[in-house]
Amino acid sequence: MQLFNYFRSSASYRVRIALALKGLNYDYVPVALVRNEQFKEPFSELSSARLVPLLKDGDKLLTQSLAIIEYLDETHPNPPLLPGDALARARIRALALDVACEIHPLNNLRVLRYLVHDLKVSEDDKNRWYRHWVEQGLDAVERQIATHSATGKFCHGDAPTLADCVLVPQIHNAHRLDCRLDHVPTVMRVFDACMRLDAFAKTQPSACPDAA
Amino acid sequence: MQLFNYFRSSASYRVRIALALKGLNYDYVPVALVRNEQFKEPFSELSSARLVPLLKDGDKLLTQSLAIIEYLDETHPNPPLLPGDALARARIRALALDVACEIHPLNNLRVLRYLVHDLKVSEDDKNRWYRHWVEQGLDAVERQIATHSATGKFCHGDAPTLADCVLVPQIHNAHRLDCRLDHVPTVMRVFDACMRLDAFAKTQPSACPDAA
Repeated sequence: MQLFNYFRSSASYRVRIALALKGLNYDYVPVALVRNEQFKEPFSELSSARLVPLLKDGDKLLTQSLAIIEYLDETHPNPPLLPGDALARARIRALALDVACEIHPLNNLRVLRYLVHDLKVSEDDKNRWYRHWVEQGLDAVERQIATHSATGKFCHGDAPTLADCVLVPQIHNAHRLDCRLDHVPTVMRVFDACMRLDAFAKTQPSACPDAA
Repeated sequence: MQLFNYFRSSASYRVRIALALKGLNYDYVPVALVRNEQFKEPFSELSSARLVPLLKDGDKLLTQSLAIIEYLDETHPNPPLLPGDALARARIRALALDVACEIHPLNNLRVLRYLVHDLKVSEDDKNRWYRHWVEQGLDAVERQIATHSATGKFCHGDAPTLADCVLVPQIHNAHRLDCRLDHVPTVMRVFDACMRLDAFAKTQPSACPDAA
């Protein structure tokens, strides 16, 4: 398998974690979003969506990090990243989507660029925008995991799931932009537990081959 | 089942379509986002995320539209909304996420409010922002379905899937904000095919009990 990705893309990091948890080997192919390589050949020929991550599995091309992780979980079921019954799986997916739909899309590179270049928002206001969605979004995650009986050492139970694969990269982003995190102690407890595992630590942005 | 939702919430509309495709009955419980009812009791007691839609199935509470639809598909498998093998399912999920992660989060009510109230963006710039993400995002969907051999009468094959449940509400939003749609002919062909089905037509925003 080949993973086309970028060290600082949190959607890419989600898939790196999932591949590591499954123990799957892959070639790391960097696509420098900061130089707009996603819009240029050869990547643009592979990806009609022009987005990383993209997983090439034989002749199959897969996009969208959550869809890729579900695919990996269906084709390599152990260890399961969506364990349990339909209700458990719905809770895990909902926690992942609380980050993937409510926080991350507001703060990715192209959105921040549009705010600054097209809407002429100041650097200060751009950073305020960033922190607002991270802090508010993580607060919603905290409310859902702080007292829920299904929360364990990780977001759901005592082994990492899809929810942790999505949460951890968001915390790395939050650190990078100095977001407040003292209001989400359960989130941070889960983050610390994840970062003690090689699958999360060895795939983090700073450990990537294309890290600056 | 009870569906807590709002007529104009496109995430709510996704779930209404899925419930209708499955032939499942439910009580429609309106939550007026425009009056911030999601932050007030009784809804705030049920939903720690303070988001619609929320599905109550017996004593089970489910949030996040895509997670709810996956749950419905696992608990009521026919007709399948994620048919086929792992690769087909990955394609369907990726198309759904292309709308749910790349377009919709940028244009929901709380984001538009933040642009206007906190960043003091003008009404014109807010509308330009809205159209930009819709038009660019749908262009990416068009590129993925226009020439792909798996595209049929609908986004994937000749029966509606999760991808159509997510695409159609986005087109309703695009119409409401006068977005350009002439650059996405395949998307519009699929939209028209969907709207000829009761499951899409009878659950559309204007047909809801709480429509203004």
